[in-house]
Amino acid sequence: MADTLDLGYAKLDLDRRRRCGMPEVIFAEGKRTEWLLESVEKMHTAGEDVFATRLNAEQTAALVQHFPQGTSNNLARSFWWPQPAERILIGNLAIVTAGTSDLPVAHEALATATAFGVNAAIIADVGVAGLHRILAKRAEINTADVVIVVAGMDGALPSVVGGLVDAPVIAVPTSIGYGASFGGVAALLTMLNSCSASVAVVNIDSGFKAAAVASRIIARIHTRH
Amino acid sequence: MADTLDLGYAKLDLDRRRRCGMPEVIFAEGKRTEWLLESVEKMHTAGEDVFATRLNAEQTAALVQHFPQGTSNNLARSFWWPQPAERILIGNLAIVTAGTSDLPVAHEALATATAFGVNAAIIADVGVAGLHRILAKRAEINTADVVIVVAGMDGALPSVVGGLVDAPVIAVPTSIGYGASFGGVAALLTMLNSCSASVAVVNIDSGFKAAAVASRIIARIHTRH
Amino acid sequence: MADTLDLGYAKLDLDRRRRCGMPEVIFAEGKRTEWLLESVEKMHTAGEDVFATRLNAEQTAALVQHFPQGTSNNLARSFWWPQPAERILIGNLAIVTAGTSDLPVAHEALATATAFGVNAAIIADVGVAGLHRILAKRAEINTADVVIVVAGMDGALPSVVGGLVDAPVIAVPTSIGYGASFGGVAALLTMLNSCSASVAVVNIDSGFKAAAVASRIIARIHTRH
Amino acid sequence: MADTLDLGYAKLDLDRRRRCGMPEVIFAEGKRTEWLLESVEKMHTAGEDVFATRLNAEQTAALVQHFPQGTSNNLARSFWWPQPAERILIGNLAIVTAGTSDLPVAHEALATATAFGVNAAIIADVGVAGLHRILAKRAEINTADVVIVVAGMDGALPSVVGGLVDAPVIAVPTSIGYGASFGGVAALLTMLNSCSASVAVVNIDSGFKAAAVASRIIARIHTRH
Amino acid sequence: MADTLDLGYAKLDLDRRRRCGMPEVIFAEGKRTEWLLESVEKMHTAGEDVFATRLNAEQTAALVQHFPQGTSNNLARSFWWPQPAERILIGNLAIVTAGTSDLPVAHEALATATAFGVNAAIIADVGVAGLHRILAKRAEINTADVVIVVAGMDGALPSVVGGLVDAPVIAVPTSIGYGASFGGVAALLTMLNSCSASVAVVNIDSGFKAAAVASRIIARIHTRH
Amino acid sequence: MADTLDLGYAKLDLDRRRRCGMPEVIFAEGKRTEWLLESVEKMHTAGEDVFATRLNAEQTAALVQHFPQGTSNNLARSFWWPQPAERILIGNLAIVTAGTSDLPVAHEALATATAFGVNAAIIADVGVAGLHRILAKRAEINTADVVIVVAGMDGALPSVVGGLVDAPVIAVPTSIGYGASFGGVAALLTMLNSCSASVAVVNIDSGFKAAAVASRIIARIHTRH
Amino acid sequence: MADTLDLGYAKLDLDRRRRCGMPEVIFAEGKRTEWLLESVEKMHTAGEDVFATRLNAEQTAALVQHFPQGTSNNLARSFWWPQPAERILIGNLAIVTAGTSDLPVAHEALATATAFGVNAAIIADVGVAGLHRILAKRAEINTADVVIVVAGMDGALPSVVGGLVDAPVIAVPTSIGYGASFGGVAALLTMLNSCSASVAVVNIDSGFKAAAVASRIIARIHTRH
Amino acid sequence: MADTLDLGYAKLDLDRRRRCGMPEVIFAEGKRTEWLLESVEKMHTAGEDVFATRLNAEQTAALVQHFPQGTSNNLARSFWWPQPAERILIGNLAIVTAGTSDLPVAHEALATATAFGVNAAIIADVGVAGLHRILAKRAEINTADVVIVVAGMDGALPSVVGGLVDAPVIAVPTSIGYGASFGGVAALLTMLNSCSASVAVVNIDSGFKAAAVASRIIARIHTRH
Repeated sequence: MADTLDLGYAKLDLDRRRRCGMPEVIFAEGKRTEWLLESVEKMHTAGEDVFATRLNAEQTAALVQHFPQGTSNNLARSFWWPQPAERILIGNLAIVTAGTSDLPVAHEALATATAFGVNAAIIADVGVAGLHRILAKRAEINTADVVIVVAGMDGALPSVVGGLVDAPVIAVPTSIGYGASFGGVAALLTMLNSCSASVAVVNIDSGFKAAAVASRIIARIHTRH
Repeated sequence: MADTLDLGYAKLDLDRRRRCGMPEVIFAEGKRTEWLLESVEKMHTAGEDVFATRLNAEQTAALVQHFPQGTSNNLARSFWWPQPAERILIGNLAIVTAGTSDLPVAHEALATATAFGVNAAIIADVGVAGLHRILAKRAEINTADVVIVVAGMDGALPSVVGGLVDAPVIAVPTSIGYGASFGGVAALLTMLNSCSASVAVVNIDSGFKAAAVASRIIARIHTRH
Repeated sequence: MADTLDLGYAKLDLDRRRRCGMPEVIFAEGKRTEWLLESVEKMHTAGEDVFATRLNAEQTAALVQHFPQGTSNNLARSFWWPQPAERILIGNLAIVTAGTSDLPVAHEALATATAFGVNAAIIADVGVAGLHRILAKRAEINTADVVIVVAGMDGALPSVVGGLVDAPVIAVPTSIGYGASFGGVAALLTMLNSCSASVAVVNIDSGFKAAAVASRIIARIHTRH
Repeated sequence: MADTLDLGYAKLDLDRRRRCGMPEVIFAEGKRTEWLLESVEKMHTAGEDVFATRLNAEQTAALVQHFPQGTSNNLARSFWWPQPAERILIGNLAIVTAGTSDLPVAHEALATATAFGVNAAIIADVGVAGLHRILAKRAEINTADVVIVVAGMDGALPSVVGGLVDAPVIAVPTSIGYGASFGGVAALLTMLNSCSASVAVVNIDSGFKAAAVASRIIARIHTRH
Repeated sequence: MADTLDLGYAKLDLDRRRRCGMPEVIFAEGKRTEWLLESVEKMHTAGEDVFATRLNAEQTAALVQHFPQGTSNNLARSFWWPQPAERILIGNLAIVTAGTSDLPVAHEALATATAFGVNAAIIADVGVAGLHRILAKRAEINTADVVIVVAGMDGALPSVVGGLVDAPVIAVPTSIGYGASFGGVAALLTMLNSCSASVAVVNIDSGFKAAAVASRIIARIHTRH
Repeated sequence: MADTLDLGYAKLDLDRRRRCGMPEVIFAEGKRTEWLLESVEKMHTAGEDVFATRLNAEQTAALVQHFPQGTSNNLARSFWWPQPAERILIGNLAIVTAGTSDLPVAHEALATATAFGVNAAIIADVGVAGLHRILAKRAEINTADVVIVVAGMDGALPSVVGGLVDAPVIAVPTSIGYGASFGGVAALLTMLNSCSASVAVVNIDSGFKAAAVASRIIARIHTRH
Repeated sequence: MADTLDLGYAKLDLDRRRRCGMPEVIFAEGKRTEWLLESVEKMHTAGEDVFATRLNAEQTAALVQHFPQGTSNNLARSFWWPQPAERILIGNLAIVTAGTSDLPVAHEALATATAFGVNAAIIADVGVAGLHRILAKRAEINTADVVIVVAGMDGALPSVVGGLVDAPVIAVPTSIGYGASFGGVAALLTMLNSCSASVAVVNIDSGFKAAAVASRIIARIHTRH
Repeated sequence: MADTLDLGYAKLDLDRRRRCGMPEVIFAEGKRTEWLLESVEKMHTAGEDVFATRLNAEQTAALVQHFPQGTSNNLARSFWWPQPAERILIGNLAIVTAGTSDLPVAHEALATATAFGVNAAIIADVGVAGLHRILAKRAEINTADVVIVVAGMDGALPSVVGGLVDAPVIAVPTSIGYGASFGGVAALLTMLNSCSASVAVVNIDSGFKAAAVASRIIARIHTRH
């Protein structure tokens, strides 16, 4: 079957870009290094851009050694090895974080958006305990096609952003916090219950998913009309 | 202050349409009927379209009696009393449900989209236990700007839809189910953990929020360029 | 023993005002109406101010019928029958709510503060989805000795208030919300994880406790020095 | 007592094969290595096939060193030392996984089925985000006596499989995922709430139990008639 | 499309018997009575056996009035209206309950098994607090093709049954209990963690699912060979 | 079998007094009234003392009407119909409650102890917010063979009692409270984590179980030596 | 104050034996080694028997080195350094475990009972999956004053033991298990919901508390009369 | 903008002391060491007192090496580098702990109070299992402006303290405990449900927040009048 590459332990979905507008991404968690290496090589050979996320240190080291043409991103814990081709990034994605400790998740979103062909930038550390910081960025944020808001602890920032701008808001809870933050559950519940109507939510720490959703929206905005 | 209407028990946000692109909506749950009636009247007098959600039977009866110009929607449990004006609905929103019991939530989304000026339609009862039903609707769904997928029980439908189309997917878990569905928590967790990358999630039973997010996206698509 | 009034089913603590600065309050939930009536009468006869909370409709009706000298408060679900004496309220307690539906809890706090001799006022419906509402009240709130912030849904308001003023903040989560608000758990977790350092929290819907804590603080401020 | 072998710290159940159709299996988690070694030796001496699961690296090393006649399976984390005898495997068990990271659990199921005398094979990485993969395997799966479906993250695959075939489905949630997957709870709830009627569920990551249940069913199918 | 009957609010799956070996069953919870009535009528007209579960009193009354040819089962809360045809029940399904209060769930299983063409019988009230009761039924239970064990409270009975017989065991937790039984969660967890290897589990109170799984197994046993 | 009375829907355990020292008790929750009545009659006819718990209003009315020789206890929600015989109560059981609202659970314990032949008395409303109340009862409590401590809300009383006396303490959490008491879970966790070593715990609201455990202990104390 | 030894970081309770019948025990978890050593030395010097629990490897090594007169118990993770005196153990405590992996908790109970002057013995690995093992020990168990039952996974053993004997049963859930055992929560809930009336429960893995409760009961039995 | 220092990965809030009465504190968890070092240096250069919390060993070592003028506090896991200036501590804060293992959290509170200019002292190990210890400290505690009570396990101490004194009580649950303490959740729930009215609660292990709230209150008491 031409749309699947069967490696035994994996069936790479070579048809996903056609169906869904973006290629399959390799989720590295729980995968043996030898499986990861072969998957990367086979996807590249099949003419796909290769993007891998949730890499641990051992996996990253192996990828860098075997595929020096690719680029490893330590903050984002991702690996990016595109086909050689001219790439034009489209749209305008704002990635906003409540605190400094939320930055790794924001960088996973940034790396994912880039891999999916979207233009993005991070605005860091504008949490609600010092409102003047987010108010100063209000106009800038509202020029974006979509806003990703990354926050741990109380997860309150998306509610405030959702009430300040008219862009759609994708909220990412992070596992930053302690005690009753329960690894991001507190922030997740805050965001699901946001008093701002226009906040949709993705999984805890999933900068990847936020960027994937945002990229689909931006593709709709910039390629439809 | 011109952008707020202070009723003592409430401060109506008359500036929200300017800031966020959509007017304030009245969430009726937990509100006294006399407060609800006065809020509706004052918003209408202030020149706003009035849209109220989560109405119980007593509240609905009072609204219908006092404001016969408005329209009550029993399935959606909403009330809609727009200003007299010509209204053109924009875009194309698909609202898909896994089962028949998910329809009230889908109708809340439909009523909300209409109130926010968006064109929407429901495709009902295409859950994954009979895949041919959703496969038959694949092309139709993919013409939409955004897809809302409403599902209770196992909440598996958004994962399947997300892998079939390239439209952005907003998933709404419903409280339909029994036993270990825990009032929609099972479906919520399924959707947050969707193996399809492009699924964002809103609160349990919140057809309203799904439509609000979708409407912002559709406004970006159809009014930006 | 002079400091306890033993009714068999209850031991009224007549010494509490001396030890803790405020008299025992009758928690009505789960109490038989005949027990409630006798407790109220015995406390009054013992020279105490009588304050009862969490009354249901049947209990309220019985209290109003038997003790017409007392005052029932329907929004707060409380009953207040003080000894005849001149009462001077001290201090300045601000009770802020995120939404209109949070008002019953705010009124329980107001009634409790009054019973404990504290001057209080409610500022309603200034949630974070429309920030200009709370910003307009900032100066007023900061003149208070203590601020109680009452919020359901995302529970984000205390984090914002804590970053705007230098008064101590007591946050009360409410059970207002739906879906994944889990009867106030979402707002409770938000508040416990507030990114503002100066937010302490009480039980869900407990306007009573927030006011009790605030009253002790205000007593320290106004009677110590 | 002839049906129990009392080692003090353990009472090996030598009667289980007669009662339940399959011998006792040694669950290694939390057991001291010296206890494990003695149990293995005593079971072998008593004429039983020895099968041990949930081995850590230290336990595996000790078993391999002391009992070189046995076979260690690293992916399955199991050890298998049967009595010398001709073994004929019966039936046809399909073990299907949603992703590559679910393979260790699938291999535990495969090793268990083999130990219990059942013929089994793995079909890997056919999750619902790329439906064509499972649709291509539909006929093959439906020839099985029983289907075990192993899935983490959203756990949606058993619902789809249950609607495609008429074989009984045993679903195994895995702890693969992150954030709100809660170590497999999300997948577990999805499976318990499956909209497909014919899905039964075992404990998270328990390839062992799924195979034990499937083996009993297959014994009923192939030895009854 | 010939395999689906589209009613707008529902798409009846007329192909399910061919694919899955059993017809679609109507889950009545959350459905409007007029939808239920039309669905029943259309399925009957299409030549299907009609079986509906989770009926409330109003729905039951409407069904009995409109379709007097059908049979309502109050303990099971189900409705059964088969096509006129000779029906031969196959196999031997034992449905065992821990207590008397678990009987409604057992009767849902019995009614479902009958609708799916399987021969079944209930053995009631043999919980582990009086072991002699289950020991007296051991031989009888072991003649069954499959055993369904229904238990609330501590949910301990499936572990004991699983160790006494060699039939496959499908466990159904019930919501019977109080306090920390949490609506059946305690029994559900017990069963998922059963120390007997051959116990698979279905959703809380789902006699329906247990019987559906058992029926597929029994079809495999009695029609394959 | 002489030790079981088989009613079809129930198997009454007539051997339990011999095995366990106390007769079977009828748990009424979820039982049909006609089953309850027949069970009571058959147990009485078989020469057993009849004790039923967790009765609702309809069940109680039916029992009182059919068996006027028995005694209904409204606070305890129990029914007691002993065989005519002289009864000597043994031992000394103290049942202590934190608040007045905990009394129904204390009365269930008292009724159960009496049915099991144990002498018991209630000491009510001595919670830790007014320590002088429990300190005044310290000597009295320490004369008891066993102390049952019943508490809702924070569930703190057993920890204090366990540190004041040398009697064994059985703690019963009650569902009294609101907000984050979660129907008694808060008190249950407090008691399980008691800093006093000698506190054992039973299910939420289970005055019955606390008394059953205490009765077995008292039987050991007073009949062994 | 003579009944407390104030070390600044700790206040050793020298009066506990008089009040509660057993001396203070040192809970080592979270304590600095230097604090632990000084506490042990000061308690010994004050004439107390020293018993410490929950020791980690570093703490154990330090204790053994500084106080070679004491005895370390590796399975129980405890340390015991009694005053030189003749000690007579009283009573008869049976400690029963479901599996071999539950033995460390059973040994903590055994060590605690010994320190509190009670005679105890362990009966290991008699879980319900092989009922003949516990049935063979029934008479022996019933001669005990109290039975402690230690079980992980499904936690079903106490329900069975409670129905077989007339001794009081103290159940200890253990954290043995995987997946949905949630670190012992599954077994804890099973035990709290036991269908046997006479089962009281202590904290997960708390062999210490079970033995403390049992010791108080045994003191009542053997020293009262 | 003069009130914010933008470092790219962080926006230091230099205006917080003016708004909230206390400077921004650096929360070190999840921050890269190079970010931490630059933030400390820039805050110091901007004329702020620098206080950092939740430091791990690597971060502490780096801070001590680069800024030898600052002071590291190992028990509190904090770092304190004030501007050179005369500092007068105001007020009287009592920090009470239930056990010795709660001391690190108490020391975090002490270090925070000092950094915020408040006079504080610790009273350790006065838990409720030995009531005489807290009773002996009652008068001393009641002279405090505010009482912080730190407790793990059952979390019962704040309820007792709240009933003994008239000072406001801030309760801090700690993660000390095991089994069903769930990392401090048990103590947190106890405190939220305290039967003493005047107990407010902060996040698990958050000595920092308790001291921040207490410092605001003490500033109100000592600088207002």
